[in-house]
Amino acid sequence: MNPKPVIAIQGGPASFHDVVAQQYFAPTEIQSLPCMTFQRVFASVKNGESDFGVLAIENSLAGSILGNYSLLHDYPVSIIGEAYLPIEQNLLALPGQSVKDIRVVRSHPMALLQCSNFLEEHPHLQALEAADTAESAREIRENNLTGVAAVASRAAAARYGLDILEECIQNYKDNYTRFLIISRQAAKDLSTANKASVNFRLHHRSGELAKILDVFRDLNINLSLIQSIPIMSKPSEFTILLDLEWDNYEDFKAAIAKVEPMTVEIKILGIYKRGVK
Amino acid sequence: MNPKPVIAIQGGPASFHDVVAQQYFAPTEIQSLPCMTFQRVFASVKNGESDFGVLAIENSLAGSILGNYSLLHDYPVSIIGEAYLPIEQNLLALPGQSVKDIRVVRSHPMALLQCSNFLEEHPHLQALEAADTAESAREIRENNLTGVAAVASRAAAARYGLDILEECIQNYKDNYTRFLIISRQAAKDLSTANKASVNFRLHHRSGELAKILDVFRDLNINLSLIQSIPIMSKPSEFTILLDLEWDNYEDFKAAIAKVEPMTVEIKILGIYKRGVK
Repeated sequence: MNPKPVIAIQGGPASFHDVVAQQYFAPTEIQSLPCMTFQRVFASVKNGESDFGVLAIENSLAGSILGNYSLLHDYPVSIIGEAYLPIEQNLLALPGQSVKDIRVVRSHPMALLQCSNFLEEHPHLQALEAADTAESAREIRENNLTGVAAVASRAAAARYGLDILEECIQNYKDNYTRFLIISRQAAKDLSTANKASVNFRLHHRSGELAKILDVFRDLNINLSLIQSIPIMSKPSEFTILLDLEWDNYEDFKAAIAKVEPMTVEIKILGIYKRGVK
Repeated sequence: MNPKPVIAIQGGPASFHDVVAQQYFAPTEIQSLPCMTFQRVFASVKNGESDFGVLAIENSLAGSILGNYSLLHDYPVSIIGEAYLPIEQNLLALPGQSVKDIRVVRSHPMALLQCSNFLEEHPHLQALEAADTAESAREIRENNLTGVAAVASRAAAARYGLDILEECIQNYKDNYTRFLIISRQAAKDLSTANKASVNFRLHHRSGELAKILDVFRDLNINLSLIQSIPIMSKPSEFTILLDLEWDNYEDFKAAIAKVEPMTVEIKILGIYKRGVK
């Protein structure tokens, strides 16, 4: 029997990255490899320490995590899949505590931001930023902290034996985060692929982007994301990132062949099957 | 003599927002109003508690702060200016300490990310996320913390009497953050304006974005930022944010008049003079 595949995740056990890794590869059992930074996720996939990596790339509150696009551009890895995770945040504390007992709420800054309305409605709660949602829950359990709550997932409540004092406290019910699955090698079987992430640089001429979008439109390629990314070393220039979707893979191939000569540089970050929201 | 104008900033005294506010309004002396969240900055401008607000909108590492575009869309405020601040991060500690004495480095998560190479090269330093760069410096001074350093600006070192153990420790020398200046009222004198931020929603048809970009190209309007912004309540739709630049304001007016009927909704977030990088 094969050993379990190793999946590098950003964050600790029971973090949202861990939940996505378990779900994406199910029913295959995996072994997750916690990494404290995104760069560590990329490095471990590159050097073979892990088989795949999982990384958040976009959330409906903060937008694209551009740093991860730089890493995708620089590391020899390929996107082989994506997953959307509805983000449900909960207020967790030791059993027996109630909301009025809590003075301090710890969590990742993004999680606190996602729950800003709840925190404003409960002005007696002081928000304190921490490195990870699930780690905030673990610390409450390990140090037996009363008066302290964490904002984290149900999975973190279950793992660390905490009660859910309030559920679904995020501002937007339909909040989700998009994750990418990366691998050293591009996906080989493209028969089910219907989406690609493409990064390109244009000659410094106005209107070129419109011409490229025309090519995609003429070939029935849909745009699901467009984003200019500043080039660090050339402050007045940018690259363009497009997420493209199609019904027929041949259309995508034809579009890329047509667009390639119109660009200075083009990099296909991955061709994959689109995730379900 | 008029009282000093009140400028709402995100973060505390000597934060990067404070530095931008002082520089933008110089030689006018200002009184800055520290706010712990961006939403507080908008609320204080709206209710007249402050005359203007300053908010980070984009940095070369993490990209656009989409949450602030939502606030710009929802609050009755207008962008009246922008400023670019080169971000220089430094390692600050109590006088007499050296890098080898330090065990823990505290700062805002973004600042720690900006210095990830330095932190990897000094594995004995444990990074700890905190709410603000300048506040991390203040806490070292107030609690007389040895073995702890903050990643923050020179202004924070000066304000809190800390030594700079290492200067310019950010990964990219040309790292900058873009800030917007907001006001209850749109700028009245547009004679020096040469930039606008425009948010619009298209009918759900492919290729419309290309048509709109063609209008701007034909009227010599340059694109300096393009960004799709997911609509929370409609996960498969998005609005488009464009930053546009021109030599002749009449061209911009003509372009908007032409583009308006092609959109479902268009909101000009502000017309202003572009900042110097």
